[in-house]
Amino acid sequence: MAKIKVYGHPISTATRLVLCCLHEKKVEYDFVLVELSAGAHKQPQYLALNPFGVLPTIQDGDLTLFESRAIAKYLAKKYEGQGTELLGNSLSEQALVEQWSQVEGQSFNSPASTILFQILFVPMSGGSTDEAAVEMNVEKLKKVLDIYEERLSKSKYLAGDFFSLADLQHLPYLDYLVTDCGKGDLISSRKHVKAWWEDISSRPAWKKATGKTP
Amino acid sequence: MAKIKVYGHPISTATRLVLCCLHEKKVEYDFVLVELSAGAHKQPQYLALNPFGVLPTIQDGDLTLFESRAIAKYLAKKYEGQGTELLGNSLSEQALVEQWSQVEGQSFNSPASTILFQILFVPMSGGSTDEAAVEMNVEKLKKVLDIYEERLSKSKYLAGDFFSLADLQHLPYLDYLVTDCGKGDLISSRKHVKAWWEDISSRPAWKKATGKTP
Repeated sequence: MAKIKVYGHPISTATRLVLCCLHEKKVEYDFVLVELSAGAHKQPQYLALNPFGVLPTIQDGDLTLFESRAIAKYLAKKYEGQGTELLGNSLSEQALVEQWSQVEGQSFNSPASTILFQILFVPMSGGSTDEAAVEMNVEKLKKVLDIYEERLSKSKYLAGDFFSLADLQHLPYLDYLVTDCGKGDLISSRKHVKAWWEDISSRPAWKKATGKTP
Repeated sequence: MAKIKVYGHPISTATRLVLCCLHEKKVEYDFVLVELSAGAHKQPQYLALNPFGVLPTIQDGDLTLFESRAIAKYLAKKYEGQGTELLGNSLSEQALVEQWSQVEGQSFNSPASTILFQILFVPMSGGSTDEAAVEMNVEKLKKVLDIYEERLSKSKYLAGDFFSLADLQHLPYLDYLVTDCGKGDLISSRKHVKAWWEDISSRPAWKKATGKTP
C-alpha cells in the first residue's frame, strides 16, 4: 500500500505536530516539501489540496486531510494498537484528552503563536517585533501555564497519568518558545510544567520530528 | 441515574453549543445557571469545576468536563445510536468531521467572536465598539466563508452529505451575527452558505437550545 504523503515544511509548527504523531504511531510516510519561501502554499496546486493555504496536508489513499490536530486524531485512530496509544482508553479518559486538546487549541495556541510570530518570523521578513504584543501575550500565556502547573501537580500528563495527543500538541510551540524565543523561564519557573516539558520533549518521536535524531 | 448537570448561561455561545448537542442526542439534563453578571464564573466554587472560569462545564457522574467542543464530542460518542449521529460513520467521514470542526475552532471562531464581542458585548459593558477591529475581522470572516461557499457547492454539509458536529459548532456565532450584529449579508450573499444556514438553523434542537421552542 502507498505510504501516507505529508505536504509540509520542517520549520512549520503544525507540520512538526503531524510528523511527531507519525513517529509515535510508527507509521512510514513520504515527505513533500512545500517551499514556503517561494509561496508554494498559495499556488493553485497546493490550494487544490488545502483551500486555506496553510501547512500541512496529508494524502492517504483517496483521503486528503488538513488541520494538523485533525490529522493527528485520524492517525491515532487509524493506527490504534500500533506505536503509542494517544487517545485514552475509557470514554472518560478520551473526554479529558479532548478537553485538554481543546485547551491547547483555544487558550494556549493563540498567545504562544503570537509570541513566536513576533519574535522570530516578523524579523525574518524584515519587520520589527511589536514588543507590546509580545508582553501582552506573555501575560496571557502565564495565566494558562499557571493552570497547567496546578493540573500537572495532580497528574503526570494533562489528561491523566498517560501521554496523549493533548500533551503532544504542545510540543511544537513550547520548543520554539524555549529554543528560539528566549522564553524558557516561562517553563523553568513552574516546577511541574518544567518536569512535564522535560519528559515530553525528550520523547524519541519528537526528536525525530524536529530532525534532532534520524 | 442522575441527569447530566450543565453549568452555563443562556446568553453564552458555548453553552448554546452544548445544549444544542444535548437536544440532538435527546439527552435530558439539569441546567444550573451561572450568574455571569454577578461574576459567579470567577468565584472559587465555579473555578473548582473549571479553572479557566468560562462557560459551560458539565458534570456526568464522576466526570467533570469543560471546553464546549470537547463536551459535544463526549456526548456524541456516549450516546451513539441515540438521536442524531454527529461524528460520521467511516474513519474518513470522522476525519472530515474533525477537520471542519478544527476549521471552526481555528479559523471561523476568532473573527466571529471578535465581531460579536465588539458589536454586542462591549456596548453592554458601557464601552464603545472598535469599528476598525470589526472591519478587519469581517474581512477575515469573508475569506473563511468564501471557502465554505466553495465547499458547500460540492456537499450539503461541511463534512459531507450528513449533518455533523462540524456544522453544529457554527450555529451559536452565526445566529448572533445574523440576529444581533446586523451581519446577515455575510450569509445571504453566498448562495450555498445561505442554504446551509437556513437548513441548520431550522433544526428543532437548535431552536430548543436558544429557547425559541420549549
